Amino acid sequence: MSRKLTSMPDAHVRRRANLRELLREQGLDAVLVADLLNLRYLTGFTGSNGALLVHADGEERTVFCTDGRYVEQASLQVPELEHLIDRSSALALAAKVDNDAAYRRTGFESQHVSVDGLDALTEAAPSLKFTRAPNLVERLRMVKDDTEVEALRMACAAADRALADLIEHGGLTVGRTEREVARDLENRMLDHGATKPSFDSIVATGANSAIPHHRPTDAVLHQGDFVKLDFGALIDGYHSDMTRTLVLGQPADWQREVYDLVAAAQAAGRAALKPGARVQDVDAAAREVIENAGRGAEFLHGLGHGVGLEIHEAPALAKTGEGTLSAGMAVTVEPGVYLSGKGGVRIEDTLVVRDGRPELLTLTTKQLMVV
Amino acid sequence: MSRKLTSMPDAHVRRRANLRELLREQGLDAVLVADLLNLRYLTGFTGSNGALLVHADGEERTVFCTDGRYVEQASLQVPELEHLIDRSSALALAAKVDNDAAYRRTGFESQHVSVDGLDALTEAAPSLKFTRAPNLVERLRMVKDDTEVEALRMACAAADRALADLIEHGGLTVGRTEREVARDLENRMLDHGATKPSFDSIVATGANSAIPHHRPTDAVLHQGDFVKLDFGALIDGYHSDMTRTLVLGQPADWQREVYDLVAAAQAAGRAALKPGARVQDVDAAAREVIENAGRGAEFLHGLGHGVGLEIHEAPALAKTGEGTLSAGMAVTVEPGVYLSGKGGVRIEDTLVVRDGRPELLTLTTKQLMVV
Repeated sequence: MSRKLTSMPDAHVRRRANLRELLREQGLDAVLVADLLNLRYLTGFTGSNGALLVHADGEERTVFCTDGRYVEQASLQVPELEHLIDRSSALALAAKVDNDAAYRRTGFESQHVSVDGLDALTEAAPSLKFTRAPNLVERLRMVKDDTEVEALRMACAAADRALADLIEHGGLTVGRTEREVARDLENRMLDHGATKPSFDSIVATGANSAIPHHRPTDAVLHQGDFVKLDFGALIDGYHSDMTRTLVLGQPADWQREVYDLVAAAQAAGRAALKPGARVQDVDAAAREVIENAGRGAEFLHGLGHGVGLEIHEAPALAKTGEGTLSAGMAVTVEPGVYLSGKGGVRIEDTLVVRDGRPELLTLTTKQLMVV
Repeated sequence: MSRKLTSMPDAHVRRRANLRELLREQGLDAVLVADLLNLRYLTGFTGSNGALLVHADGEERTVFCTDGRYVEQASLQVPELEHLIDRSSALALAAKVDNDAAYRRTGFESQHVSVDGLDALTEAAPSLKFTRAPNLVERLRMVKDDTEVEALRMACAAADRALADLIEHGGLTVGRTEREVARDLENRMLDHGATKPSFDSIVATGANSAIPHHRPTDAVLHQGDFVKLDFGALIDGYHSDMTRTLVLGQPADWQREVYDLVAAAQAAGRAALKPGARVQDVDAAAREVIENAGRGAEFLHGLGHGVGLEIHEAPALAKTGEGTLSAGMAVTVEPGVYLSGKGGVRIEDTLVVRDGRPELLTLTTKQLMVV
């Protein structure tokens, strides 16, 4: 039995209690959760079909549904809840409580449920008053509990170790292709316990490093190239995310200059991570460093993003981001400067916002590594 | 430049012309395509943000939108269309033609667009009459053109070769773990040109083979075990899907019996793949073989599914499936019999429906392999 199949009822019970508090705040009787990541967060269930009906009154009214393929898995992963076995999951849950006045005002995930999906729900349970309830679980997910931070810590450690191995074993050398490096790095993450890479790795050499989201090609690493590596490991459903940019051989002056600038901006961004800080201000703290050096137009994206069960989740640390940070949020800080046709640098960490200084989860050095 | 970044304007021009025909059939002025796979199908664009507004009148009114990160990529991949550069893609396209009477009746992908997403569209373009237009592009995607079949052929070949390599190099041996086998197999697919595995590989040994969608664990392969391998390669965005079940050492009588039964059912399913056949009847053709042997209750799932830009797409070959087959549809045929606590067999091919016999894309033998 894999680690993913063990249940952590305590954490899930607590998360569902937090959700019930949000339901009461919003005046909802219940909420229908059909997004699979939200379902996993609330129950630990990792199957590919399921839904959960959480009632504001308490656990005894909370019902989990999945289909026949997952009967055994569900009884292992979600032993503490009532189960309904039905292929149509969310529709079946809705139909089950249709005509029950205690569920009249039932919220649904309006940011996930499609227009056709809402039609189907309404047809399955015509007496329920389905109410838009976007991002309730996502809001909870922004602040990570200890179980989640531990998974993120392991995922970040697997990535750190993989990069150390790669360099130690001469994996970053002139003549290799971006694709070879990506595959080597990914295999080393698996060696260190990753379920799989947390997203398609970016390996970009030379001028390709100026393309923010370059996909690995057969381009060959050359002496003097910047090599930008943006990668992560998935462990227990949690994603790590780290970028490092190295130089093959002695860095040129322009490379050192760009690198130092991005490193300074990244440090400023990390220093701005404090409970209560506005996410726009965190973005601005790093962006100003780059703008003050006259390179604002070459920093093409936001500063960072939340990370957890998704590789990109709330909050967005960006000019257009909204809201403030809280202790326990896990975010990336990843400024970049991209000189088109020449090369670019991005430096990215995954961190947890704490009272005081943030906790750094990706521990690989941010000194300019020369390999 | 990777192969994915080259454009195939001819195929895309033809696909958009087919879509325009559907628009005229439905009495729509235009359709807003925001699903990224549908967008890729219609344009070749592989970025992570974009949308397309296709007008029934012709290409000159068709507008593509993506954000600033993809300006260069979009000009390489979609050179033949007008581009709008805006982060809000679908919303920006809608806003651009708001108040233009020629777009009044604009369809949207109601199976993908969320309830909140439709609210945002309506706000961005209050004068448009947004109309549910589910599955227009998905309907086209069911029938593969030559470019698509060639990609599927390559993806299936990579999987065939990987399995042959694995066996040839002693990768399936007593004492290895499911996880080791999965990783070995996946690396061999990469050796043969896969971008990545087309889904999380299933490797299930012994009693685990009775779990239809078992995830690889540290369980060790034992002499006499069934080993079920369900895996595929992704090439140029197209997914292959194949399952083979082998025996480690001499098969027991019960193993041979179950294997022969599933092989006979699979052959019956393949033989039923003909243009005009009802998908329910194809499912029934295979299912009957298993039911007649008194094992109907141990065939826990549908017979197969369409495969292409998604690993699971229309049509579903299942009891509850609807519609009929057409020449050019790519589908899997994958009956299984699962004896709980003991072991199970699934045999799966990817095929293309043709006039006459279907074209088999996964070529690995279906004789019971003993390794």
